[in-house]
Amino acid sequence: MGLIVQKFGGTSLANAEKIHRAARRAIRAQLDDNRVVVVVSAMDKTTDELVDLAYQITDRPSRREMDQLLATGEQISIALMAMAIHHAGHDAISLTGGQIGLRTDRAFGRARIREITERGRILSQLKQGSIVIVAGFQGVDEALNITTLGRGGSDTTAVALAASLGADVCEIYTDVDGIYSADPRIVPGARKLNFVFYDEMLELASLGAQVMHSRSIELGKNYDVTIHVRSSYTDAKGTDIVKVSSDLEQVIVRGAALKKDLARVELVGVPNRPGLASEIFSQVAKRGVIVDDIIQVVHEGGATADMSFTIEAADKEQAEVAGAELGKELTGMRMIIKENLAKVSVVGVGMRTHTGVASRMFEALHQADVNIENISTSEIVVSCVVKAVDGEKALRAVHAAFELDQESK
Amino acid sequence: MGLIVQKFGGTSLANAEKIHRAARRAIRAQLDDNRVVVVVSAMDKTTDELVDLAYQITDRPSRREMDQLLATGEQISIALMAMAIHHAGHDAISLTGGQIGLRTDRAFGRARIREITERGRILSQLKQGSIVIVAGFQGVDEALNITTLGRGGSDTTAVALAASLGADVCEIYTDVDGIYSADPRIVPGARKLNFVFYDEMLELASLGAQVMHSRSIELGKNYDVTIHVRSSYTDAKGTDIVKVSSDLEQVIVRGAALKKDLARVELVGVPNRPGLASEIFSQVAKRGVIVDDIIQVVHEGGATADMSFTIEAADKEQAEVAGAELGKELTGMRMIIKENLAKVSVVGVGMRTHTGVASRMFEALHQADVNIENISTSEIVVSCVVKAVDGEKALRAVHAAFELDQESK
Repeated sequence: MGLIVQKFGGTSLANAEKIHRAARRAIRAQLDDNRVVVVVSAMDKTTDELVDLAYQITDRPSRREMDQLLATGEQISIALMAMAIHHAGHDAISLTGGQIGLRTDRAFGRARIREITERGRILSQLKQGSIVIVAGFQGVDEALNITTLGRGGSDTTAVALAASLGADVCEIYTDVDGIYSADPRIVPGARKLNFVFYDEMLELASLGAQVMHSRSIELGKNYDVTIHVRSSYTDAKGTDIVKVSSDLEQVIVRGAALKKDLARVELVGVPNRPGLASEIFSQVAKRGVIVDDIIQVVHEGGATADMSFTIEAADKEQAEVAGAELGKELTGMRMIIKENLAKVSVVGVGMRTHTGVASRMFEALHQADVNIENISTSEIVVSCVVKAVDGEKALRAVHAAFELDQESK
Repeated sequence: MGLIVQKFGGTSLANAEKIHRAARRAIRAQLDDNRVVVVVSAMDKTTDELVDLAYQITDRPSRREMDQLLATGEQISIALMAMAIHHAGHDAISLTGGQIGLRTDRAFGRARIREITERGRILSQLKQGSIVIVAGFQGVDEALNITTLGRGGSDTTAVALAASLGADVCEIYTDVDGIYSADPRIVPGARKLNFVFYDEMLELASLGAQVMHSRSIELGKNYDVTIHVRSSYTDAKGTDIVKVSSDLEQVIVRGAALKKDLARVELVGVPNRPGLASEIFSQVAKRGVIVDDIIQVVHEGGATADMSFTIEAADKEQAEVAGAELGKELTGMRMIIKENLAKVSVVGVGMRTHTGVASRMFEALHQADVNIENISTSEIVVSCVVKAVDGEKALRAVHAAFELDQESK
């Protein structure tokens, strides 16, 4: 007998019909001889409505009270989901984050999970034949204050539960039917992957694949939880996210990704001194600007350096504020921001043991007449910053060059 | 320094403006040198919306899941109320029924309070200067399942908290400004009472005064909690509900009440035998029919009896079903139902030590040309069943006869 954790997001629970559909999936999994735990998010729009209520009261709601408020969204979902399973004649019980003892720290709005204390209660309900419905996204601190987990919270609850219960698989039901070799809206030949390794998925997530938040993938990796991403609307098999296995040689590049709406910040003629990078990036971080692909070049003689990094275009103004602040300290420094950029990347664990990926990518971009502005590489990623207008063309060229439309052996 | 519990119902919290108004009341009480605990209901309509969601899923929601669902209504209110107090620059913390350790039995939908375990947490927050906002209507059983208290639940939470914390007063904010000597919509001269005794209020509540549910008054009586019923909309003093004090001689009748939409069931020629009443009323209770003012007359010789009792007109059909069922057992019995009745009552603890109340009431009704169908009396109530058309006239006549429009000394 297996044990499955299924997670349904807000769009999969938007109305009574969709809740019944999700309930049928859970029941079917149980009839297929599994014990089933279902993790649910708030119904689509509920969270927005609750946030709106709070902002009708005050423009600066306290984080604690916001969590107290928002947690009701998932509590509504679990009760309705349990009712839907009852309606179909099966046993179910709903449990809040507090009721499963999902203990977190006290960082309201972005709490981290510490442990799940009421594992025994869940297992005992499963043993009695109930489908156990758990509220995602929420927990309690040691004083039983309600906390929420922040972005990707329900996925994180699902993976944490799967880890704690030793589930065979954590199924993430979503509005896409799996992980693709590239965004199929841009690359017509993009192929649904049967599996992807945790590290690859982590890179793809940070490169803009919005299927799952990297936090839950990280957790899955740490506890070796097989995550299966699949569609709420079809029965087609989705994509497994798994640990690296021995067939790792066969595929060098798993997928390609395009991140749009980027800008590049260049700090030119920075007086070079110890602690320079820390000084710059703490200023930038203070403004909430997320940076990527940092390059530093120290000029001959070592008196000055050039520093550059990628930011999201939306953060441009905050970056300028940080730059002006830095200018007071770093005499002679100039800040240049290049806009309308995009980044095309290829990702694959196989790169660890293969060379020539970067050059093959550069060649593909050259053939497609795409100019490369910046290059950055890590162990399993090669990224090229290109002009925004070239982004989609670049992605298609790279996808083709690595034959990502071909079924892997 | 005093300690006040304030309770706001759903209509007093229907929108952001009303929530801010309630918040200002709590703050004002604190500035008047009190520690303040606020108990809130769900915002007006929220409960209806949640019930509607449940019935979109199933026509028979489980009681446990219904409680899990409905409890979110008060949780939303406490968070918003705390935010409103923060917005005004004061400290506040919201706590659910579970967070104050309001332990109940497991009777979902109509749970009884057993104890409040986290009294220390509340007192410590009050000591730190916070206004403590508590979700009414809800608690948890020993396994931390969420339970709700049923009708009058938030009032009951407020009174229980006031008892547990030894509060000076439990203020119930509502859309009327106190308890009246009679319904002022019917009796223009009706007067707001400065106080009323628990037992009188219990009788008035059962006679249709819908200001408070008898359950919370009973609790107040048992723990000697002074309850102050007052308006959410004005600063006028309301009515205290208190224990009987020594000035009890001065007023014989505290108030008069009219209960409309009644019917009278008469069972004629019932074969008299031991256990007869139990047989009849267990059948009636099985149909959910609430009975009042039972009269039994055994005929000469003792072979047959007549039995009659009052029911709400809405229960007529169920009473007929019960009557048909009883007819099979009680050969020769006939059931007659008289409709379009009302009951006028006078209530006063002073009756315990005064005679002549009943005759004065009969005289008043006679003068007003109202015919009396049935009479029933208890220690502090005299009730007369009259024709529905005579109801309001009867109430006014009785109110005048006992000079209830006069200020008591």
